[in-house]
Amino acid sequence: MTIAFAGERGAFGELAAIEYFGEKEKSAAVPEFSDVFRGVARGRYRFGVVPIENSLAGSIHENYDRLLESNLHIVGEVLLRIRHFLIANKGISRRQIRRVFSHPAAFGQCRKFLKRFPYLTVVPVSNTAWAVKKIRNEGLNDAAAIASQQAAVDFDMQVLARNIEDTKWNTTRFLVVAKKFRFPLPAAKSASKSAAKRIKSSIVFSTKDIPGALYKCLSVFALRDINLYKIESRPVHGRGFQYLFYLDFAGDARNDVQRNAINHLQEITTFYRFLGSYPVGTPLDPEYRKRPLL
Amino acid sequence: MTIAFAGERGAFGELAAIEYFGEKEKSAAVPEFSDVFRGVARGRYRFGVVPIENSLAGSIHENYDRLLESNLHIVGEVLLRIRHFLIANKGISRRQIRRVFSHPAAFGQCRKFLKRFPYLTVVPVSNTAWAVKKIRNEGLNDAAAIASQQAAVDFDMQVLARNIEDTKWNTTRFLVVAKKFRFPLPAAKSASKSAAKRIKSSIVFSTKDIPGALYKCLSVFALRDINLYKIESRPVHGRGFQYLFYLDFAGDARNDVQRNAINHLQEITTFYRFLGSYPVGTPLDPEYRKRPLL
Repeated sequence: MTIAFAGERGAFGELAAIEYFGEKEKSAAVPEFSDVFRGVARGRYRFGVVPIENSLAGSIHENYDRLLESNLHIVGEVLLRIRHFLIANKGISRRQIRRVFSHPAAFGQCRKFLKRFPYLTVVPVSNTAWAVKKIRNEGLNDAAAIASQQAAVDFDMQVLARNIEDTKWNTTRFLVVAKKFRFPLPAAKSASKSAAKRIKSSIVFSTKDIPGALYKCLSVFALRDINLYKIESRPVHGRGFQYLFYLDFAGDARNDVQRNAINHLQEITTFYRFLGSYPVGTPLDPEYRKRPLL
Repeated sequence: MTIAFAGERGAFGELAAIEYFGEKEKSAAVPEFSDVFRGVARGRYRFGVVPIENSLAGSIHENYDRLLESNLHIVGEVLLRIRHFLIANKGISRRQIRRVFSHPAAFGQCRKFLKRFPYLTVVPVSNTAWAVKKIRNEGLNDAAAIASQQAAVDFDMQVLARNIEDTKWNTTRFLVVAKKFRFPLPAAKSASKSAAKRIKSSIVFSTKDIPGALYKCLSVFALRDINLYKIESRPVHGRGFQYLFYLDFAGDARNDVQRNAINHLQEITTFYRFLGSYPVGTPLDPEYRKRPLL
Protein backbone atom coordinates (compact mmCIF):
# COMPACT_ATOMS: atom_id res chain seq x y z
CA MET A 1 0.00 0.00 0.00
CA THR A 2 1.58 3.27 -1.01
CA ILE A 3 -1.14 5.97 -0.89
CA ALA A 4 -3.68 6.55 1.90
CA PHE A 5 -6.98 8.44 1.58
CA ALA A 6 -9.92 8.79 4.02
CA GLY A 7 -13.29 7.16 3.40
CA GLU A 8 -14.55 4.26 1.32
CA ARG A 9 -13.44 3.27 -2.18
CA GLY A 10 -14.90 5.80 -4.60
CA ALA A 11 -14.53 8.66 -2.11
CA PHE A 12 -13.41 11.95 -3.65
CA GLY A 13 -10.04 11.40 -1.92
CA GLU A 14 -9.52 8.27 -3.99
CA LEU A 15 -10.40 10.16 -7.18
CA ALA A 16 -7.79 12.78 -6.28
CA ALA A 17 -5.21 10.01 -5.67
CA ILE A 18 -5.98 8.47 -9.08
CA GLU A 19 -5.71 11.87 -10.81
CA TYR A 20 -2.36 12.50 -9.19
CA PHE A 21 -0.68 9.09 -9.25
CA GLY A 22 -2.53 7.32 -12.08
CA GLU A 23 -4.66 4.16 -11.93
CA LYS A 24 -1.81 1.73 -11.33
CA GLU A 25 -0.57 2.89 -7.93
CA LYS A 26 -1.93 0.96 -4.98
CA SER A 27 -4.02 2.93 -2.50
CA ALA A 28 -5.61 2.23 0.87
CA ALA A 29 -8.88 3.55 2.32
CA VAL A 30 -8.48 4.52 6.01
CA PRO A 31 -11.36 5.67 8.25
CA GLU A 32 -10.45 9.30 8.96
CA PHE A 33 -8.14 12.15 7.94
CA SER A 34 -6.15 11.72 11.15
CA ASP A 35 -5.43 8.10 10.09
CA VAL A 36 -3.98 9.37 6.80
CA PHE A 37 -1.57 11.74 8.59
CA ARG A 38 -0.63 9.15 11.24
CA GLY A 39 -0.13 6.38 8.67
CA VAL A 40 2.20 8.51 6.55
CA ALA A 41 4.09 9.88 9.59
CA ARG A 42 4.71 6.31 10.83
CA GLY A 43 5.91 5.17 7.41
CA ARG A 44 3.03 2.79 6.79
CA TYR A 45 2.04 4.70 3.64
CA ARG A 46 4.41 6.60 1.37
CA PHE A 47 1.89 9.32 0.53
CA GLY A 48 -1.38 10.65 1.88
CA VAL A 49 -4.11 12.52 -0.01
CA VAL A 50 -6.24 14.93 2.05
CA PRO A 51 -8.64 17.79 1.23
CA ILE A 52 -7.40 21.23 2.36
CA GLU A 53 -10.02 23.62 0.95
CA ASN A 54 -13.29 23.70 -0.97
CA SER A 55 -14.58 26.51 -3.16
CA LEU A 56 -17.88 26.65 -1.24
CA ALA A 57 -16.96 25.46 2.25
CA GLY A 58 -13.54 27.15 2.65
CA SER A 59 -10.21 26.04 4.14
CA ILE A 60 -10.25 22.90 6.25
CA HIS A 61 -8.32 24.23 9.26
CA GLU A 62 -8.35 20.81 10.95
CA ASN A 63 -6.15 19.41 8.20
CA TYR A 64 -3.81 22.41 8.42
CA ASP A 65 -3.52 21.60 12.14
CA ARG A 66 -2.79 17.94 11.42
CA LEU A 67 -0.19 18.95 8.83
CA LEU A 68 1.62 21.10 11.42
CA GLU A 69 1.33 18.47 14.18
CA SER A 70 2.48 15.56 12.03
CA ASN A 71 5.49 17.36 10.55
CA LEU A 72 4.62 16.07 7.08
CA HIS A 73 5.45 17.96 3.88
CA ILE A 74 3.28 18.91 0.94
CA VAL A 75 4.67 17.34 -2.24
CA GLY A 76 1.75 17.92 -4.61
CA GLU A 77 -1.81 19.19 -5.05
CA VAL A 78 -4.90 18.19 -7.03
CA LEU A 79 -7.81 20.53 -7.78
CA LEU A 80 -10.79 18.28 -8.28
CA ARG A 81 -14.12 19.43 -9.62
CA ILE A 82 -16.80 17.81 -7.47
CA ARG A 83 -19.49 16.20 -9.63
CA HIS A 84 -22.40 14.31 -8.13
CA PHE A 85 -24.24 11.30 -9.56
CA LEU A 86 -27.52 9.68 -8.56
CA ILE A 87 -26.65 5.99 -8.10
CA ALA A 88 -28.88 2.93 -7.53
CA ASN A 89 -28.80 -0.86 -7.80
CA LYS A 90 -28.94 -2.30 -11.31
CA GLY A 91 -32.40 -2.82 -12.75
CA ILE A 92 -33.95 -0.08 -10.58
CA SER A 93 -35.77 2.74 -12.39
CA ARG A 94 -35.94 6.36 -11.27
CA ARG A 95 -39.65 5.99 -10.48
CA GLN A 96 -38.96 3.36 -7.80
CA ILE A 97 -36.74 5.73 -5.77
CA ARG A 98 -38.28 7.10 -2.58
CA ARG A 99 -35.15 7.67 -0.42
CA VAL A 100 -31.78 9.25 -1.19
CA PHE A 101 -28.69 8.57 0.96
CA SER A 102 -25.65 10.87 1.01
CA HIS A 103 -23.44 13.19 3.06
CA PRO A 104 -25.30 16.38 4.13
CA ALA A 105 -22.80 18.49 2.14
CA ALA A 106 -23.78 16.62 -1.05
CA PHE A 107 -27.49 17.32 -0.41
CA GLY A 108 -26.59 20.98 0.01
CA GLN A 109 -24.78 20.92 -3.34
CA CYS A 110 -27.68 19.24 -5.21
CA ARG A 111 -30.59 21.36 -3.97
CA LYS A 112 -31.98 22.27 -7.40
CA PHE A 113 -32.08 18.61 -8.47
CA LEU A 114 -33.73 17.48 -5.23
CA LYS A 115 -36.37 20.22 -5.46
CA ARG A 116 -37.60 18.65 -8.71
CA PHE A 117 -38.48 15.49 -6.75
CA PRO A 118 -40.16 16.74 -3.57
CA TYR A 119 -41.50 13.26 -2.69
CA LEU A 120 -37.94 11.99 -2.06
CA THR A 121 -36.82 11.55 1.56
CA VAL A 122 -33.18 12.51 2.09
CA VAL A 123 -31.23 10.39 4.57
CA PRO A 124 -27.92 11.90 5.71
CA VAL A 125 -24.98 9.50 6.18
CA SER A 126 -21.33 10.17 7.02
CA ASN A 127 -19.75 9.53 3.61
CA THR A 128 -20.94 9.61 -0.02
CA ALA A 129 -19.25 6.34 -1.05
CA TRP A 130 -20.55 4.62 2.08
CA ALA A 131 -24.10 5.52 0.95
CA VAL A 132 -23.52 3.59 -2.30
CA LYS A 133 -22.07 0.63 -0.39
CA LYS A 134 -25.06 0.54 1.96
CA ILE A 135 -27.60 0.49 -0.89
CA ARG A 136 -25.72 -2.32 -2.62
CA ASN A 137 -25.08 -4.42 0.49
CA GLU A 138 -28.67 -4.14 1.67
CA GLY A 139 -30.07 -4.65 -1.85
CA LEU A 140 -32.39 -1.63 -1.43
CA ASN A 141 -34.77 -1.17 -4.37
CA ASP A 142 -36.43 2.08 -3.22
CA ALA A 143 -33.22 4.00 -2.54
CA ALA A 144 -30.48 5.87 -4.40
CA ALA A 145 -27.22 7.50 -3.30
CA ILE A 146 -25.61 10.79 -4.30
CA ALA A 147 -21.89 10.13 -4.81
CA SER A 148 -19.04 10.30 -7.32
CA GLN A 149 -19.07 8.46 -10.65
CA GLN A 150 -16.09 6.51 -9.35
CA ALA A 151 -18.23 5.10 -6.51
CA ALA A 152 -20.72 3.79 -9.10
CA VAL A 153 -17.87 2.12 -11.00
CA ASP A 154 -16.18 0.69 -7.89
CA PHE A 155 -19.39 -0.86 -6.52
CA ASP A 156 -20.66 -1.84 -10.01
CA MET A 157 -23.89 0.16 -9.71
CA GLN A 158 -26.24 1.95 -12.07
CA VAL A 159 -26.17 5.72 -12.68
CA LEU A 160 -29.69 7.23 -12.79
CA ALA A 161 -28.62 10.86 -13.26
CA ARG A 162 -25.28 12.57 -13.75
CA ASN A 163 -23.85 16.00 -12.86
CA ILE A 164 -26.75 16.82 -10.59
CA GLU A 165 -24.76 19.45 -8.62
CA ASP A 166 -26.12 23.02 -8.54
CA THR A 167 -22.92 24.86 -9.42
CA LYS A 168 -20.16 24.17 -11.90
CA TRP A 169 -17.57 25.81 -9.69
CA ASN A 170 -17.56 23.36 -6.81
CA THR A 171 -13.89 22.40 -6.58
CA THR A 172 -11.95 20.75 -3.77
CA ARG A 173 -8.20 21.20 -3.43
CA PHE A 174 -6.43 18.06 -2.20
CA LEU A 175 -2.85 17.97 -0.92
CA VAL A 176 -0.44 15.09 -1.45
CA VAL A 177 1.62 14.77 1.75
CA ALA A 178 4.77 12.77 2.48
CA LYS A 179 7.22 12.33 5.33
CA LYS A 180 10.22 13.56 3.39
CA PHE A 181 10.49 16.53 1.15
CA ARG A 182 11.12 14.86 -2.23
CA PHE A 183 13.33 16.08 -5.03
CA PRO A 184 12.84 15.97 -7.99
CA LEU A 185 9.23 16.83 -7.35
CA PRO A 186 6.60 14.45 -8.69
CA ALA A 187 4.05 16.05 -11.04
CA ALA A 188 0.44 14.87 -11.25
CA LYS A 189 0.00 12.16 -13.91
CA SER A 190 -2.87 14.15 -15.34
CA ALA A 191 -0.97 17.47 -15.43
CA SER A 192 0.18 18.98 -18.70
CA LYS A 193 3.94 19.35 -19.07
CA SER A 194 3.79 23.14 -18.90
CA ALA A 195 1.72 23.05 -15.72
CA ALA A 196 4.08 20.58 -14.07
CA LYS A 197 6.90 23.10 -14.44
CA ARG A 198 5.15 25.80 -12.43
CA ILE A 199 6.11 25.37 -8.79
CA LYS A 200 4.57 26.98 -5.75
CA SER A 201 5.48 26.94 -2.05
CA SER A 202 3.35 26.87 1.09
CA ILE A 203 4.30 28.33 4.48
CA VAL A 204 2.63 29.12 7.81
CA PHE A 205 3.71 32.01 10.03
CA SER A 206 2.70 34.33 12.88
CA THR A 207 3.51 37.99 13.42
CA LYS A 208 3.31 40.38 16.32
CA ASP A 209 -0.15 41.89 16.69
CA ILE A 210 0.77 45.42 15.56
CA PRO A 211 -0.65 47.50 12.68
CA GLY A 212 1.22 46.86 9.44
CA ALA A 213 2.83 43.58 10.59
CA LEU A 214 1.30 41.57 7.76
CA TYR A 215 2.08 44.37 5.32
CA LYS A 216 5.76 44.10 6.25
CA CYS A 217 5.64 40.33 5.76
CA LEU A 218 4.14 40.67 2.30
CA SER A 219 6.78 43.25 1.37
CA VAL A 220 9.43 40.50 1.28
CA PHE A 221 7.50 38.94 -1.61
CA ALA A 222 6.38 42.16 -3.33
CA LEU A 223 9.96 43.54 -3.38
CA ARG A 224 11.03 40.43 -5.29
CA ASP A 225 8.00 40.30 -7.63
CA ILE A 226 6.95 36.95 -6.19
CA ASN A 227 3.26 36.37 -6.88
CA LEU A 228 0.91 35.05 -4.19
CA TYR A 229 -1.58 32.21 -4.69
CA LYS A 230 -3.28 32.19 -1.33
CA ILE A 231 -3.34 34.17 1.88
CA GLU A 232 -5.48 33.48 4.89
CA SER A 233 -5.43 34.64 8.49
CA ARG A 234 -6.62 32.39 11.27
CA PRO A 235 -7.09 33.50 14.87
CA VAL A 236 -5.12 31.31 17.29
CA HIS A 237 -7.68 30.55 19.95
CA GLY A 238 -6.69 30.77 23.56
CA ARG A 239 -3.77 33.06 22.75
CA GLY A 240 -5.37 36.48 22.84
CA PHE A 241 -5.34 38.10 19.44
CA GLN A 242 -2.55 36.14 17.79
CA TYR A 243 -3.01 35.04 14.21
CA LEU A 244 -1.59 32.29 12.04
CA PHE A 245 -1.17 33.16 8.36
CA TYR A 246 -1.31 30.58 5.59
CA LEU A 247 0.58 31.77 2.51
CA ASP A 248 1.15 30.10 -0.87
CA PHE A 249 3.60 31.89 -3.18
CA ALA A 250 5.02 31.29 -6.65
CA GLY A 251 8.34 29.48 -7.09
CA ASP A 252 10.48 26.79 -5.53
CA ALA A 253 11.74 27.61 -2.02
CA ARG A 254 15.20 26.33 -3.03
CA ASN A 255 15.64 29.09 -5.61
CA ASP A 256 17.82 32.01 -4.50
CA VAL A 257 15.08 34.63 -4.80
CA GLN A 258 12.54 32.62 -2.81
CA ARG A 259 15.15 31.59 -0.23
CA ASN A 260 16.09 35.23 0.31
CA ALA A 261 12.43 36.17 0.74
CA ILE A 262 11.98 33.42 3.34
CA ASN A 263 15.13 34.42 5.25
CA HIS A 264 13.93 38.02 5.21
CA LEU A 265 10.46 36.92 6.39
CA GLN A 266 11.87 34.91 9.31
CA GLU A 267 13.48 38.08 10.68
CA ILE A 268 10.02 39.60 11.25
CA THR A 269 7.82 36.61 12.18
CA THR A 270 7.25 35.14 15.65
CA PHE A 271 6.57 31.64 14.23
CA TYR A 272 7.47 30.16 10.84
CA ARG A 273 7.03 26.73 9.25
CA PHE A 274 7.85 25.60 5.71
CA LEU A 275 5.21 23.17 4.39
CA GLY A 276 6.58 22.34 0.94
CA SER A 277 7.31 23.32 -2.69
CA TYR A 278 5.33 21.42 -5.31
CA PRO A 279 3.92 21.65 -8.86
CA VAL A 280 0.87 23.92 -9.23
CA GLY A 281 -2.25 21.79 -9.71
CA THR A 282 -4.49 22.45 -12.69
CA PRO A 283 -8.25 22.21 -12.11
CA LEU A 284 -9.23 18.67 -13.08
CA ASP A 285 -12.58 17.43 -14.17
CA PRO A 286 -12.79 13.65 -13.83
CA GLU A 287 -15.75 13.47 -16.19
CA TYR A 288 -13.60 14.29 -19.19
CA ARG A 289 -11.13 11.51 -18.49
CA LYS A 290 -11.53 8.16 -20.18
CA ARG A 291 -13.40 5.98 -17.74
CA PRO A 292 -15.35 2.74 -18.03
CA LEU A 293 -18.71 3.49 -19.63
CA LEU A 294 -21.64 3.00 -17.30
CA MET B 1 -40.89 37.68 14.22
CA THR B 2 -37.82 39.87 14.15
CA ILE B 3 -34.76 37.56 13.97
CA ALA B 4 -34.28 34.57 11.66
CA PHE B 5 -31.81 31.70 12.17
CA ALA B 6 -31.44 28.37 10.31
CA GLY B 7 -32.33 25.03 11.90
CA GLU B 8 -34.54 23.92 14.77
CA ARG B 9 -35.03 25.64 18.14
CA GLY B 10 -31.86 25.10 20.16
CA ALA B 11 -29.62 25.27 17.08
CA PHE B 12 -26.34 27.11 17.61
CA GLY B 13 -27.77 29.91 15.42
CA GLU B 14 -30.51 30.48 18.02
CA LEU B 15 -27.92 30.57 20.80
CA ALA B 16 -26.03 33.23 18.87
CA ALA B 17 -29.25 35.22 18.42
CA ILE B 18 -29.95 35.05 22.17
CA GLU B 19 -26.40 36.12 23.02
CA TYR B 20 -26.68 39.08 20.70
CA PHE B 21 -30.26 40.28 21.20
CA GLY B 22 -31.11 38.89 24.64
CA GLU B 23 -33.81 36.38 25.60
CA LYS B 24 -36.76 38.69 25.04
CA GLU B 25 -36.50 39.28 21.29
CA LYS B 26 -38.69 37.06 19.14
CA SER B 27 -36.89 34.75 16.74
CA ALA B 28 -37.93 32.37 13.96
CA ALA B 29 -36.36 29.06 12.90
CA VAL B 30 -36.19 28.75 9.08
CA PRO B 31 -35.00 25.62 7.23
CA GLU B 32 -31.79 26.83 5.56
CA PHE B 33 -29.24 29.65 5.49
CA SER B 34 -30.61 30.82 2.13
CA ASP B 35 -34.03 31.26 3.80
CA VAL B 36 -32.43 33.56 6.39
CA PHE B 37 -30.92 35.80 3.70
CA ARG B 38 -34.07 35.78 1.56
CA GLY B 39 -36.36 36.46 4.54
CA VAL B 40 -34.30 39.47 5.66
CA ALA B 41 -33.88 40.82 2.10
CA ARG B 42 -37.68 40.66 1.57
CA GLY B 43 -38.34 42.43 4.87
CA ARG B 44 -40.01 39.46 6.54
CA TYR B 45 -37.40 39.46 9.32
CA ARG B 46 -35.56 42.49 10.62
CA PHE B 47 -32.32 40.61 11.31
CA GLY B 48 -30.72 37.32 10.32
CA VAL B 49 -28.08 35.35 12.23
CA VAL B 50 -25.77 33.15 10.12
CA PRO B 51 -22.43 31.39 10.74
CA ILE B 52 -19.54 32.79 8.65
CA GLU B 53 -16.51 30.88 9.98
CA ASN B 54 -15.52 28.15 12.40
CA SER B 55 -12.16 27.77 14.12
CA LEU B 56 -11.80 24.17 12.86
CA ALA B 57 -13.74 24.13 9.61
CA GLY B 58 -12.78 27.58 8.22
CA SER B 59 -14.73 30.31 6.41
CA ILE B 60 -18.16 29.41 5.09
CA HIS B 61 -17.77 30.80 1.57
CA GLU B 62 -21.38 29.93 0.71
CA ASN B 63 -22.61 32.46 3.24
CA TYR B 64 -20.17 35.08 1.92
CA ASP B 65 -21.72 34.42 -1.51
CA ARG B 66 -25.24 34.80 -0.14
CA LEU B 67 -24.23 38.02 1.62
CA LEU B 68 -22.96 39.47 -1.69
CA GLU B 69 -25.98 38.25 -3.68
CA SER B 70 -28.59 39.44 -1.19
CA ASN B 71 -27.09 42.93 -0.75
CA LEU B 72 -27.52 42.67 3.02
CA HIS B 73 -25.24 44.44 5.50
CA ILE B 74 -23.37 43.11 8.52
CA VAL B 75 -24.55 44.95 11.65
CA GLY B 76 -23.04 42.73 14.34
CA GLU B 77 -21.09 39.57 15.15
CA VAL B 78 -21.13 36.88 17.84
CA LEU B 79 -18.23 34.54 18.60
CA LEU B 80 -19.79 31.47 20.14
CA ARG B 81 -17.87 28.70 21.81
CA ILE B 82 -19.39 25.43 20.61
CA ARG B 83 -20.09 23.12 23.55
CA HIS B 84 -21.72 19.74 23.10
CA PHE B 85 -24.05 17.92 25.50
CA LEU B 86 -25.28 14.31 25.53
CA ILE B 87 -29.07 14.60 25.76
CA ALA B 88 -31.78 11.94 26.31
CA ASN B 89 -35.40 11.61 27.39
CA LYS B 90 -36.09 12.08 31.10
CA GLY B 91 -35.73 8.97 33.25
CA ILE B 92 -33.27 7.34 30.85
CA SER B 93 -29.87 6.32 32.30
CA ARG B 94 -26.57 6.35 30.47
CA ARG B 95 -26.48 2.55 30.50
CA GLN B 96 -29.64 2.29 28.39
CA ILE B 97 -28.11 4.29 25.51
CA ARG B 98 -27.14 2.26 22.44
CA ARG B 99 -27.51 4.85 19.65
CA VAL B 100 -26.39 8.49 19.38
CA PHE B 101 -27.98 10.91 16.90
CA SER B 102 -26.28 14.14 15.76
CA HIS B 103 -24.80 16.10 12.87
CA PRO B 104 -21.60 14.44 11.49
CA ALA B 105 -19.59 17.58 12.43
CA ALA B 106 -20.63 17.10 16.09
CA PHE B 107 -19.47 13.46 16.04
CA GLY B 108 -16.14 14.69 14.63
CA GLN B 109 -15.87 17.18 17.51
CA CYS B 110 -16.65 14.58 20.24
CA ARG B 111 -14.36 11.73 19.12
CA LYS B 112 -12.60 11.27 22.46
CA PHE B 113 -15.90 10.98 24.32
CA LEU B 114 -17.36 8.51 21.79
CA LYS B 115 -14.22 6.35 21.93
CA ARG B 116 -14.90 5.69 25.61
CA PHE B 117 -18.20 4.02 24.62
CA PRO B 118 -17.32 1.85 21.61
CA TYR B 119 -20.61 -0.08 21.79
CA LEU B 120 -22.57 3.07 20.79
CA THR B 121 -23.87 3.29 17.22
CA VAL B 122 -23.64 6.81 15.80
CA VAL B 123 -26.50 7.88 13.53
CA PRO B 124 -25.81 11.03 11.46
CA VAL B 125 -28.69 13.47 10.97
CA SER B 126 -28.82 16.90 9.34
CA ASN B 127 -29.03 19.09 12.45
CA THR B 128 -28.07 18.75 16.13
CA ALA B 129 -31.31 20.21 17.50
CA TRP B 130 -33.35 18.04 15.14
CA ALA B 131 -31.68 14.98 16.71
CA VAL B 132 -33.04 16.02 20.13
CA LYS B 133 -36.52 16.65 18.69
CA LYS B 134 -36.53 13.21 17.03
CA ILE B 135 -35.63 11.39 20.25
CA ARG B 136 -38.32 13.24 22.18
CA ASN B 137 -41.06 12.93 19.54
CA GLU B 138 -40.42 9.21 19.03
CA GLY B 139 -39.99 8.61 22.76
CA LEU B 140 -36.78 6.64 22.16
CA ASN B 141 -35.36 5.03 25.32
CA ASP B 142 -32.17 3.56 23.80
CA ALA B 143 -30.97 6.75 22.11
CA ALA B 144 -29.26 10.05 22.98
CA ALA B 145 -28.44 13.15 20.93
CA ILE B 146 -25.34 15.34 20.85
CA ALA B 147 -26.49 18.98 20.76
CA SER B 148 -26.33 22.32 22.59
CA GLN B 149 -27.46 22.79 26.18
CA GLN B 150 -30.10 25.15 24.81
CA ALA B 151 -31.65 22.28 22.82
CA ALA B 152 -32.00 20.29 26.07
CA VAL B 153 -33.73 23.27 27.70
CA ASP B 154 -35.99 24.01 24.70
CA PHE B 155 -37.21 20.44 24.38
CA ASP B 156 -37.26 19.87 28.17
CA MET B 157 -34.86 16.92 28.05
CA GLN B 158 -32.29 15.36 30.36
CA VAL B 159 -28.53 16.04 30.09
CA LEU B 160 -26.46 12.84 30.54
CA ALA B 161 -23.03 14.44 29.97
CA ARG B 162 -21.86 18.00 29.43
CA ASN B 163 -18.95 19.61 27.53
CA ILE B 164 -18.10 16.39 25.72
CA GLU B 165 -16.28 18.20 22.87
CA ASP B 166 -12.60 17.31 22.25
CA THR B 167 -11.19 20.81 22.06
CA LYS B 168 -11.80 23.96 24.04
CA TRP B 169 -11.07 26.19 21.06
CA ASN B 170 -14.00 25.28 18.87
CA THR B 171 -15.59 28.64 18.18
CA THR B 172 -18.05 29.69 15.49
CA ARG B 173 -18.35 33.29 14.34
CA PHE B 174 -21.91 34.32 13.54
CA LEU B 175 -22.88 37.49 11.65
CA VAL B 176 -25.97 39.54 12.35
CA VAL B 177 -27.24 40.78 8.97
CA ALA B 178 -29.87 43.40 8.12
CA LYS B 179 -31.27 45.09 5.03
CA LYS B 180 -30.25 48.56 6.05
CA PHE B 181 -27.01 49.72 7.48
CA ARG B 182 -28.04 50.88 10.95
CA PHE B 183 -26.75 53.80 12.93
CA PRO B 184 -26.18 53.98 15.88
CA LEU B 185 -24.85 50.44 15.80
CA PRO B 186 -26.44 47.85 18.09
CA ALA B 187 -24.01 46.12 20.44
CA ALA B 188 -24.47 42.54 21.60
CA LYS B 189 -26.50 42.32 24.83
CA SER B 190 -23.82 40.12 26.29
CA ALA B 191 -20.92 42.41 25.29
CA SER B 192 -19.05 44.44 27.87
CA LYS B 193 -19.28 48.20 27.44
CA SER B 194 -15.62 48.54 26.47
CA ALA B 195 -15.94 45.80 23.83
CA ALA B 196 -19.05 47.39 22.35
CA LYS B 197 -17.07 50.53 21.62
CA ARG B 198 -14.49 48.77 19.42
CA ILE B 199 -15.81 48.85 15.85
CA LYS B 200 -14.55 46.89 12.87
CA SER B 201 -15.46 46.96 9.17
CA SER B 202 -15.74 44.20 6.59
CA ILE B 203 -15.14 44.57 2.85
CA VAL B 204 -14.71 42.31 -0.21
CA PHE B 205 -12.53 43.26 -3.17
CA SER B 206 -10.65 41.95 -6.22
CA THR B 207 -7.35 43.10 -7.69
CA LYS B 208 -5.56 42.62 -10.98
CA ASP B 209 -3.55 39.39 -11.02
CA ILE B 210 -0.10 40.99 -10.90
CA PRO B 211 2.71 40.55 -8.35
CA GLY B 212 2.37 42.98 -5.46
CA ALA B 213 -1.30 43.85 -6.12
CA LEU B 214 -2.43 42.71 -2.67
CA TYR B 215 0.61 44.38 -1.11
CA LYS B 216 -0.50 47.69 -2.63
CA CYS B 217 -4.02 47.18 -1.30
CA LEU B 218 -2.76 46.53 2.22
CA SER B 219 -0.57 49.64 2.04
CA VAL B 220 -3.70 51.85 2.23
CA PHE B 221 -4.30 50.40 5.71
CA ALA B 222 -0.67 50.13 6.85
CA LEU B 223 0.03 53.78 5.92
CA ARG B 224 -2.80 54.82 8.24
CA ASP B 225 -1.93 52.40 11.08
CA ILE B 226 -5.27 50.62 10.64
CA ASN B 227 -5.04 47.14 12.15
CA LEU B 228 -6.40 44.09 10.29
CA TYR B 229 -8.63 41.41 11.86
CA LYS B 230 -8.98 39.02 8.96
CA ILE B 231 -7.65 38.53 5.46
CA GLU B 232 -8.52 35.70 3.15
CA SER B 233 -8.08 35.13 -0.57
CA ARG B 234 -10.58 33.06 -2.50
CA PRO B 235 -10.08 31.99 -6.11
CA VAL B 236 -13.00 33.06 -8.31
CA HIS B 237 -13.77 29.92 -10.24
CA GLY B 238 -14.43 30.15 -13.91
CA ARG B 239 -12.58 33.44 -14.17
CA GLY B 240 -8.99 32.33 -14.74
CA PHE B 241 -6.79 33.28 -11.83
CA GLN B 242 -8.86 36.09 -10.34
CA TYR B 243 -9.19 36.27 -6.59
CA LEU B 244 -11.69 37.74 -4.17
CA PHE B 245 -10.23 39.06 -0.93
CA TYR B 246 -12.18 39.20 2.33
CA LEU B 247 -10.79 41.86 4.66
CA ASP B 248 -11.86 42.94 8.16
CA PHE B 249 -10.13 46.05 9.52
CA ALA B 250 -10.31 48.11 12.70
CA GLY B 251 -12.55 51.16 12.89
CA ASP B 252 -15.83 52.52 11.59
CA ALA B 253 -15.94 53.10 7.82
CA ARG B 254 -17.58 56.48 8.43
CA ASN B 255 -14.50 57.84 10.21
CA ASP B 256 -12.29 60.08 8.09
CA VAL B 257 -9.21 57.85 8.29
CA GLN B 258 -11.09 54.69 7.32
CA ARG B 259 -13.01 56.50 4.59
CA ASN B 260 -9.77 57.77 3.09
CA ALA B 261 -8.30 54.27 3.15
CA ILE B 262 -11.37 52.90 1.36
CA ASN B 263 -11.32 55.65 -1.27
CA HIS B 264 -7.63 54.99 -1.83
CA LEU B 265 -8.30 51.22 -2.06
CA GLN B 266 -11.03 51.68 -4.66
CA GLU B 267 -8.51 53.36 -6.98
CA ILE B 268 -6.54 50.10 -7.21
CA THR B 269 -9.22 47.37 -7.03
CA THR B 270 -11.20 45.87 -9.91
CA PHE B 271 -14.19 45.05 -7.64
CA TYR B 272 -15.13 46.48 -4.25
CA ARG B 273 -18.06 45.95 -1.87
CA PHE B 274 -18.63 47.35 1.61
CA LEU B 275 -20.26 44.78 3.91
CA GLY B 276 -20.65 46.75 7.13
CA SER B 277 -19.15 48.39 10.25
CA TYR B 278 -20.14 46.80 13.55
CA PRO B 279 -19.01 46.24 17.17
CA VAL B 280 -16.21 43.69 17.58
CA GLY B 281 -17.61 40.49 19.10
CA THR B 282 -16.02 39.07 22.23
CA PRO B 283 -15.72 35.28 22.44
CA LEU B 284 -18.77 34.09 24.35
CA ASP B 285 -19.21 30.94 26.30
CA PRO B 286 -22.90 30.17 26.84
CA GLU B 287 -22.15 27.78 29.70
CA TYR B 288 -21.16 30.62 31.98
CA ARG B 289 -24.40 32.52 31.48
CA LYS B 290 -27.23 32.12 33.93
CA ARG B 291 -29.50 29.48 32.48
CA PRO B 292 -32.25 27.27 33.86
CA LEU B 293 -30.67 24.46 35.89
CA LEU B 294 -31.13 21.06 34.30
